[in-house]
Amino acid sequence: MSGEVVNAAVQVELGNRSYPILIGQRLLASPSSYGFLGSRPRRIVTDNHVAPLYLARLGAALGVTPEAVPAPATVLPAGEASKQMDTVAHLLDELMAARFPRDGVLVALGGGVVGDITGFVAAIYQRGIHFVQVPTTLLAQVDSSVGGKTGVNHRLGKNMIGAFHQPDAVIADTDTLSTLPPREFAAGMAEVVKYGLLGDAAFLAWLEQHAARLKTLDAGPLADAIRRCCEMKAAVVARDEREAGQRALLNLGHTFAHAIETWSGYGAWLHGEAVAVGLCMAADLSARMGWIDGAEVARVQGLLTLLDLPTRPPEGMRPADFHALMAHDKKVRSGRLRLILLRAIGRAVVTEDFDRAALGATLESFCANRVAAT
Amino acid sequence: MSGEVVNAAVQVELGNRSYPILIGQRLLASPSSYGFLGSRPRRIVTDNHVAPLYLARLGAALGVTPEAVPAPATVLPAGEASKQMDTVAHLLDELMAARFPRDGVLVALGGGVVGDITGFVAAIYQRGIHFVQVPTTLLAQVDSSVGGKTGVNHRLGKNMIGAFHQPDAVIADTDTLSTLPPREFAAGMAEVVKYGLLGDAAFLAWLEQHAARLKTLDAGPLADAIRRCCEMKAAVVARDEREAGQRALLNLGHTFAHAIETWSGYGAWLHGEAVAVGLCMAADLSARMGWIDGAEVARVQGLLTLLDLPTRPPEGMRPADFHALMAHDKKVRSGRLRLILLRAIGRAVVTEDFDRAALGATLESFCANRVAAT
Repeated sequence: MSGEVVNAAVQVELGNRSYPILIGQRLLASPSSYGFLGSRPRRIVTDNHVAPLYLARLGAALGVTPEAVPAPATVLPAGEASKQMDTVAHLLDELMAARFPRDGVLVALGGGVVGDITGFVAAIYQRGIHFVQVPTTLLAQVDSSVGGKTGVNHRLGKNMIGAFHQPDAVIADTDTLSTLPPREFAAGMAEVVKYGLLGDAAFLAWLEQHAARLKTLDAGPLADAIRRCCEMKAAVVARDEREAGQRALLNLGHTFAHAIETWSGYGAWLHGEAVAVGLCMAADLSARMGWIDGAEVARVQGLLTLLDLPTRPPEGMRPADFHALMAHDKKVRSGRLRLILLRAIGRAVVTEDFDRAALGATLESFCANRVAAT
Repeated sequence: MSGEVVNAAVQVELGNRSYPILIGQRLLASPSSYGFLGSRPRRIVTDNHVAPLYLARLGAALGVTPEAVPAPATVLPAGEASKQMDTVAHLLDELMAARFPRDGVLVALGGGVVGDITGFVAAIYQRGIHFVQVPTTLLAQVDSSVGGKTGVNHRLGKNMIGAFHQPDAVIADTDTLSTLPPREFAAGMAEVVKYGLLGDAAFLAWLEQHAARLKTLDAGPLADAIRRCCEMKAAVVARDEREAGQRALLNLGHTFAHAIETWSGYGAWLHGEAVAVGLCMAADLSARMGWIDGAEVARVQGLLTLLDLPTRPPEGMRPADFHALMAHDKKVRSGRLRLILLRAIGRAVVTEDFDRAALGATLESFCANRVAAT
């Protein structure tokens, strides 16, 4: 297949582990997207929602020679429930049985769940092999496929088992978003909004202006939005690969979101939906501390609502649930909870020094008021 | 407890992940050995052979304050059979249940198996936490505790699942070797001989002179031997942390050894015993290629025999078994087997260009001749 269009290329600068993110159309099925793999043996990991749509095309594109059979593939059950150690063990068994070599490359075709699992398997098989991300969801294209965070959930906490392991490349084909369920597209937009909130007020304003066109998958604005998110993530990751400091800013809204996801059981809420609520809660707490004003909180809620996203926690979740689940967050250090809050729209900070009473008030407010306040 | 003696300190230079190896007497039970941990939460992993000997003393030494209870510990069944994913999952469950924080430190008390498992758990819990090695076997003190290779076995291959994850420190108390079974001490000496063979002919000659004193655990020569091995390993690891090239030299004898261990079932042979045979086979193949002479092969076999080590594969193992198992070695790249061979005594090389007929002759010779040829 030909006719691929690269709309943007973003480089993640990590010394000898640097890699490109290609953003464009018709990239997935183009053999030239994968030329950098040379003759490395390859194997695809995907899920049973994505496989019928894209597996055959990707397999063909990954064939090295005209005679090559499509790359072998593992098809996982779609959804967050697959993101656990049993799946990792199953994939390792397959690689061992196939005698997959140390110079082979795993290709993750799908959303964040597939990417996180595949990257983690690549991180620990033979102490680390190559992998490539071919994200097919907006969430994965703007966030989870970039930066090398890999891993799975534990029944007692999300993303608690994993490794930092960078891909060789990220191939983000925006055409794949046309097959994404609207609810998943909206969930991806929550992470896009997060980037504006945490570091680029002008981008947030641009999103408010282009929300309607983005929802219709207008290719130009879509590629622009993905590029801007990838640029911001690449810059943060280049400065702080292992989340010693600044990288934590990317978790704006996520401490609240992880509590919601754990409380609901993984998979009931989409990650991005929980993040949308988390962004509202972080904004609300920031306002209660006097860092932003109430109109700005309303603006955040308004944009998320416009993008068809929830702004309140699930029915039945209590402040005590948040307190208990947030205490086990990875950002807890020696018993002290750290939160990402907004000093201003477009400027997030990591802090342990937040007002506990204000946090309590935010939790009370969000758990009491089930109707979106916009 | 006081009176600790640091006989040697070797620094592993890896930028901001550099760490010291302390070698000496009475280090294990001395709180000052662990002062660098500050107030980090800590947890010990050990096995049921080592626990009765040293766990209480280590637990007390790790107490932060006079009132502190001994650090909590997990006691694994001793032996290579524990080195598998089920054990990793069990330890992760314990850490999660204890809400062990991201800034906590795991302390591995025991031999290579405990160190490899603990290091791997530290590598993947919350995407990587701190850990300290307190090796109590000669093998672990000279080799496995240094360099950051961590992992577990798969039923289809040894060390096939793992990660590179450097410890914060290695505390090698030579007093612990007094409780080591003679067979395990001998197995450790195989790795010591390996260091002489691969990179220091003078050290090999020194070992020949001091073999008798080393076998009686004479503290002076023992610390000297451990220091020299750690120096050589630290130098190699500093230049090639992730085994892109030179670090593979440390696997001298190991491709043969892993085949023996896999064929026998993990645990039937001690790792060092298999390495001793592997060293003989590597020397034999090197001689068949004309790189060293027959007298040098005999010298290697003689030293290993003097150290009470085997020099022939297990009864019943055939050349075809070696061929099949070696084809799946981690050092295989795109189907090509690489071996570590001896250009000279004290000078190992990694090569894909060895004589296949000579390899066949070595395997035939070692599988046919069950009596040590020394």
